[in-house]
Amino acid sequence: MTANFIAASDLTEKQIQRLLRIAKVFSPWVNRGDSIPLLKGMTIVNLFLENSTRTRTSFELAIRKLEGSALNFAPSVSSLGKGETLIDTAKNIEAMRSHCLIVRHSSAGSPNVLAKALKMPVINAGDGFHEHPTQGLLDAYTIQEKLGAIQGKRVVIVGDIAHSRVARSNIHILKKLGASVAVCGPPTLLPPLPEKLGVDFSYRLEDLLPTADVVIALRIQMERQNKMQIPSLAEYARVWGLNRERAGLLKEEAIILHPGPINRGVEIDPEVADGPRSVILDQVSNGILVRMAVLGEVCAPHRLAQWLEKEGQNV
Amino acid sequence: MTANFIAASDLTEKQIQRLLRIAKVFSPWVNRGDSIPLLKGMTIVNLFLENSTRTRTSFELAIRKLEGSALNFAPSVSSLGKGETLIDTAKNIEAMRSHCLIVRHSSAGSPNVLAKALKMPVINAGDGFHEHPTQGLLDAYTIQEKLGAIQGKRVVIVGDIAHSRVARSNIHILKKLGASVAVCGPPTLLPPLPEKLGVDFSYRLEDLLPTADVVIALRIQMERQNKMQIPSLAEYARVWGLNRERAGLLKEEAIILHPGPINRGVEIDPEVADGPRSVILDQVSNGILVRMAVLGEVCAPHRLAQWLEKEGQNV
Amino acid sequence: MTANFIAASDLTEKQIQRLLRIAKVFSPWVNRGDSIPLLKGMTIVNLFLENSTRTRTSFELAIRKLEGSALNFAPSVSSLGKGETLIDTAKNIEAMRSHCLIVRHSSAGSPNVLAKALKMPVINAGDGFHEHPTQGLLDAYTIQEKLGAIQGKRVVIVGDIAHSRVARSNIHILKKLGASVAVCGPPTLLPPLPEKLGVDFSYRLEDLLPTADVVIALRIQMERQNKMQIPSLAEYARVWGLNRERAGLLKEEAIILHPGPINRGVEIDPEVADGPRSVILDQVSNGILVRMAVLGEVCAPHRLAQWLEKEGQNV
Repeated sequence: MTANFIAASDLTEKQIQRLLRIAKVFSPWVNRGDSIPLLKGMTIVNLFLENSTRTRTSFELAIRKLEGSALNFAPSVSSLGKGETLIDTAKNIEAMRSHCLIVRHSSAGSPNVLAKALKMPVINAGDGFHEHPTQGLLDAYTIQEKLGAIQGKRVVIVGDIAHSRVARSNIHILKKLGASVAVCGPPTLLPPLPEKLGVDFSYRLEDLLPTADVVIALRIQMERQNKMQIPSLAEYARVWGLNRERAGLLKEEAIILHPGPINRGVEIDPEVADGPRSVILDQVSNGILVRMAVLGEVCAPHRLAQWLEKEGQNV
Repeated sequence: MTANFIAASDLTEKQIQRLLRIAKVFSPWVNRGDSIPLLKGMTIVNLFLENSTRTRTSFELAIRKLEGSALNFAPSVSSLGKGETLIDTAKNIEAMRSHCLIVRHSSAGSPNVLAKALKMPVINAGDGFHEHPTQGLLDAYTIQEKLGAIQGKRVVIVGDIAHSRVARSNIHILKKLGASVAVCGPPTLLPPLPEKLGVDFSYRLEDLLPTADVVIALRIQMERQNKMQIPSLAEYARVWGLNRERAGLLKEEAIILHPGPINRGVEIDPEVADGPRSVILDQVSNGILVRMAVLGEVCAPHRLAQWLEKEGQNV
Repeated sequence: MTANFIAASDLTEKQIQRLLRIAKVFSPWVNRGDSIPLLKGMTIVNLFLENSTRTRTSFELAIRKLEGSALNFAPSVSSLGKGETLIDTAKNIEAMRSHCLIVRHSSAGSPNVLAKALKMPVINAGDGFHEHPTQGLLDAYTIQEKLGAIQGKRVVIVGDIAHSRVARSNIHILKKLGASVAVCGPPTLLPPLPEKLGVDFSYRLEDLLPTADVVIALRIQMERQNKMQIPSLAEYARVWGLNRERAGLLKEEAIILHPGPINRGVEIDPEVADGPRSVILDQVSNGILVRMAVLGEVCAPHRLAQWLEKEGQNV
């Protein structure tokens, strides 16, 4: 495990498997409402420079479940508004004896820049179009939990692949775990060279659904509509939306994921989102577990190792 | 006790009396700075979609005093801004293993809609013109504490009755506890059929004050002025404001309440707000106690029952 | 110790020395990640009516390290936006059984007004152009830590002295501890009568640097530029900025402070800010320690005295 957690592309299969196993070990504790004191005495700071209540809250709850002290460093009222550089803000947070920085930023690569400038570890909570590695992990955890394994499974990701850090992290993780991945969407939203990512692609969702074990529907950013990257939300929904008819093309045991927040009637129809294939709320629940695993590995690897040993868990 | 806490109109006299007695039992603990571990291991979420630092803070402190984990899910930066539905937001919060949702919303009925969609209990912290049941409870607690009883007392509520969830919750609770209630205000701000609420009314405050044991002055929403529902703030203050002269019409032991924040010189003059009859700051203190009682009953009824028994308290 | 902590001008040398010694005693505890339970069971409220994430966070961390319950009462969503007076807001906070109010406000004197209106103690976290006494304390702590003593040292403060509460608190504290202080900056930003503050002054930084042990560069408020109090930021940087050339005029052991957030290339050049003389990040770290000392003395003097005795610390 590196000292930071920046990109799924940096992780080995072994590291990913270990994190998923640790998350699974934590699961009964969290379900009982028990906490695990791995971050006791540590201050973990959420520096979210893009709005994301859901991801920030998930990290905050993960920190609390590990008995750490979670601190939200709010961007709108921070010194960044007064002209301070991002690195200076982060160094100030570090000087306050913080033990880890969780950062979300609209610029790809900024967690990496911060990791080089800081002594404390940095966890990437989403950086521009680059990566969102804990989302990739929680999706993998959810697939494994629901289907038993990822090895050999067929995963279809549909939506705005080109601008999606979620898609990027998912592709890295799912391929390392042995899945085959296809991407689908309007030509304007597919990456220029899908083969370089090691994935198939199609513009027609109907061609991919019958063989899929997993469909990940990405969120359509409303603002793409105005930039003419999609003709309209209605047109997108008509051609690439997961409606009942398309869901009917899936194998019986296939599952549907979405990173949220969902646009009902655009990427996914309400009856599909709330239907039996949907594991969207499981993803939210599992997010806390995988973030606990990442926080434990990154901030307190020795305490985590001791705790696992004490619990007789050989991960 | 139902699993939710949505409206004073749903509560029986017995349930109200029990909550008031529980709040009273908590009082010495809280005054000593001691906490009571009824919500230990539980996450309680404040979802406030209308600004209200004071009510939100009161709930947050009540959660802390019960050793729960309070989480503020901030609306302005939430996914609601990204087009997610309120129910989806709430289901996401629930999927994060939360144990209770406290909701404030500008639309009457939204806590009820959420309660139907969620497995976790919902507490209404104010919904549109409908109800604000914990405010009703804390007012009842304050009256009982100051006057010894509510049964047989005469309560006058003055102000914008028509648009006030505070008035509505107060009327339900106070009448169930045996008070007689009158409402007073400009014709444009009185409800269409006061008799249907079981209350008397008058446009002239002077007619009601001499027999009142309690006056509840409601907050005038500044924006009503522009909508021509009141001629002007000065005119309102002149006719319906609680000034020294009008307070002089009250019985010696009569008390004055206000849900806050007060507009000094509008609903109430500074010398009355800060005078001996005013119990406005007691209301604020008592708010924490009744919210603790509600949280205990709604989120942890078994632990509460055990704790009361251990303490030898038969409520 | 008074019940409040409003202004460095009110403090005696003995009181300042005691606070600095207490902060030093706390230091190893905090560095180990241990907390000290002086504020257990107490609620301490941050009421910040001017944005300052960094100072607010420093207080919040200090409260947590003392096991107090920190509550941020957010101004933008508070009742102040609804017309409530500052004193009413503070009295409401007090009625919620809070034990101390930390206030930042754009108006000089407002903490003093609040202190008179409240029973709970008030700590000034910066009020207009008046004072920022905990900043003065943390600067003194940092100088003492780095240079061994303050007595007899020469301190140069450069920048917008006239409008700086930091300069004012620093001058009071450093002079009481036996330093000699000079101020420097454009004529428009120097106070009208520096001699009344007991300090020397010069418009030329080069004249003051060779004899200085400490330079405190103040932050230039960007908005001063438009008000024509400084010709331009570039001109300010050219004449009063701490660049490599000017830093080269300093004695070998001289140190450089800045209250942050820094404007790189304006008050201070990057290579100086990140260079060996800079103790800017030490200031941030020490801020938590001196705020813990102030909180202990103000909110829990008896518990603090007992704790110090138990630890065999004679401060």
